[in-house]
Formats: sequence, structure tokens, C-alpha cells
Amino acid sequence: MCHVGFETDGQPFVIPTLYARVGDAIYFHGSAASRMLRGAAASVPVCITVTLTDGLVLARSVFNHSMNYRSVVALGAATLVDSPAEKLEALHAFTEKILPGRWEDARQPNEKELKATSILKLPLTEISAKVRSGPVLDDEEDYALSVWAGIVPLHLQAAAPIRDERCDPTIPTPAYAANYRR
Amino acid sequence: MCHVGFETDGQPFVIPTLYARVGDAIYFHGSAASRMLRGAAASVPVCITVTLTDGLVLARSVFNHSMNYRSVVALGAATLVDSPAEKLEALHAFTEKILPGRWEDARQPNEKELKATSILKLPLTEISAKVRSGPVLDDEEDYALSVWAGIVPLHLQAAAPIRDERCDPTIPTPAYAANYRR
Repeated sequence: MCHVGFETDGQPFVIPTLYARVGDAIYFHGSAASRMLRGAAASVPVCITVTLTDGLVLARSVFNHSMNYRSVVALGAATLVDSPAEKLEALHAFTEKILPGRWEDARQPNEKELKATSILKLPLTEISAKVRSGPVLDDEEDYALSVWAGIVPLHLQAAAPIRDERCDPTIPTPAYAANYRR
Repeated sequence: MCHVGFETDGQPFVIPTLYARVGDAIYFHGSAASRMLRGAAASVPVCITVTLTDGLVLARSVFNHSMNYRSVVALGAATLVDSPAEKLEALHAFTEKILPGRWEDARQPNEKELKATSILKLPLTEISAKVRSGPVLDDEEDYALSVWAGIVPLHLQAAAPIRDERCDPTIPTPAYAANYRR
């Protein structure tokens, strides 16, 4: 999941959506952002941000508390994807990057569904990454304080998949669902 | 963690940062966003988005794949917090909402640290929430397909805390670190 930022009439918007990188571009799902493009400009300035939270950093001082995280910010102008073939490639990438093997298992999109899907493309030209990792960093004089300090590691965890009530119980649970790892 | 969106010279930016709600306002940490406010306008249009991912929704058709999630979008104009007392209240809220009890345990901010901390405030006036929960929703004719369908639940999980190398081993691990739950 990414957060896509765009602006309408002076008001910024930030919307969570799915994305996938294909070569030197990011494709992202965008009904909200794509609304701006209909009948308007050919491209729209956006910012796509992806953040993974890795841990809470408990320093001895409140001031030095922090998060361990990895984030990437991509800036540029997004365009609406028109070509059904390119839309199909983007949907393939969304599916396969999250759940490798799912594309072949599921019913693939038909022409009507492709038409109803809004996909935007952002070429990767201006990108920056920010990472905070490793231990607590306190001011030297604070290390003498009798305060517990350390890291609480965080990660996105998948639980056991829940079979749909109407799913035939003889269909085995696929590995990408049973052993999902982000 | 929230994602804060703002715009500079026609380019949107989306930055992950910590936040806390106090009464009818959100306070958020903001070195990037606050840069825009120094010597400039008294307030800046922002969007604050908080997203929790609850699961992958594996439908029988690619088109009906989705995510279970909860997100809140708050729109408005943010102002820089000047008053040291209000900054202290915001830092207290950041700390206590994430780790109840930590504020009393850690060394609290001094005057110099408060000065070095940029905090912005967004009054909660325009807010919208979006939730997708529950089971797969397929087109009626797709239920007959021999495709596994269901939910892969996701949640942010804390692992055992890692004591800082320079932390006296006789200091007990506090409950808010040992049993952290989002």
C-alpha cells in the first residue's frame, strides 16, 4: 500500500491505495486522483509515499524517542493509463507482487472490468528514501539515568487465512495465502 | 503514524510522521511541513491520513480483489504551535497515546529541546472515514469458479523488546514495552 498525495483547488489530499513498480514507473490504483484527470490536464503532480514501520525507539529522554522505519517518496506528474494492454500489465503487477501465483489462479479481468479500472502511472524520476534503523541514540549525559531504553520491533503479520463461506472446502488453500509474508 | 500531505510550488508532498489527537485537534511532528510556515503564511493547507491495513481480500476474480482497511482523512489548515506549554501537551500526548506510562518514566523535555521541536496543529473540522471489512464480494456468476477465495488477515505485531546495550540490566522492562499492542 502507498499513500498518494495530490492537490485540488489549493487543498492537498492523501489517499491510501495499491501500487506496483514496473521497470522505471509506479502504477497505482486511483479513482480519487484520476477524477482530476478526466477532461482536465494530461498529467497531474503527485507524490507517492511508501512507509514501513520497523519499531518504536524508546530513548531515555522523551526528546530522543523515535521510530525505526523505511520510507520512499516519489515526486512527479502522473498520467492516466489508457491502453487496455498496459492496464492489464499493471493489474498483473499489483496481483503478482503481493500474491505471486494468484494471477494464474483467479479469473482474469475482462474488457468491461478493464474499462472500469482507473490506473495511473508515475515515472520514477525524482525519488528519495529515508531510513531510521538501529539502536537508541541518547544524549551522552542521559545514559546514566535509570530509565529502561531499547527498541520494540514492529512488523506487519499475517494470520491464518479465512476461507470464504461459499468457497468449496475441497479447494486447497494456496501457499501465497497460507504463508503470506510482506 | 500518519501521512501528512502539503504542497510547495505546485508539487504535493506526503511525509510519514507521528501524531496524536487532543480534544478536537490533531498535533503532528513536522520539520518538513513546518519549514513552509517559517516566515510565510500563518497557516498551511494540509491533509492528514491515517490508514490501518486489516487484510488482503482474495476474490475469485482479479477485479474484485481488495484490501480490508480503515482510514481517516482530515482536511484543513495547520498552524505552527508556538507556546511551550502547548508543545509540551502535544509531546505528552504523542508519548502517552503510543506508550501509556512512558512520559513519567523518561526524562521530560527541557526548554532547549522544546524550542528545537516543531509541532503543528490541525483543528478537526473536515473529516472522512473509509472502511472496507468483511468477506469477499464476487460477481454472482464467479462463485461457481474453482478458485480459492477468502481473507488473509493482517495486523501490526510487536516482537519482544530489545534492551539497549547500555541499559542497566537490573532495570525491569516496563509493561508498555513488553506487551505493546497497537
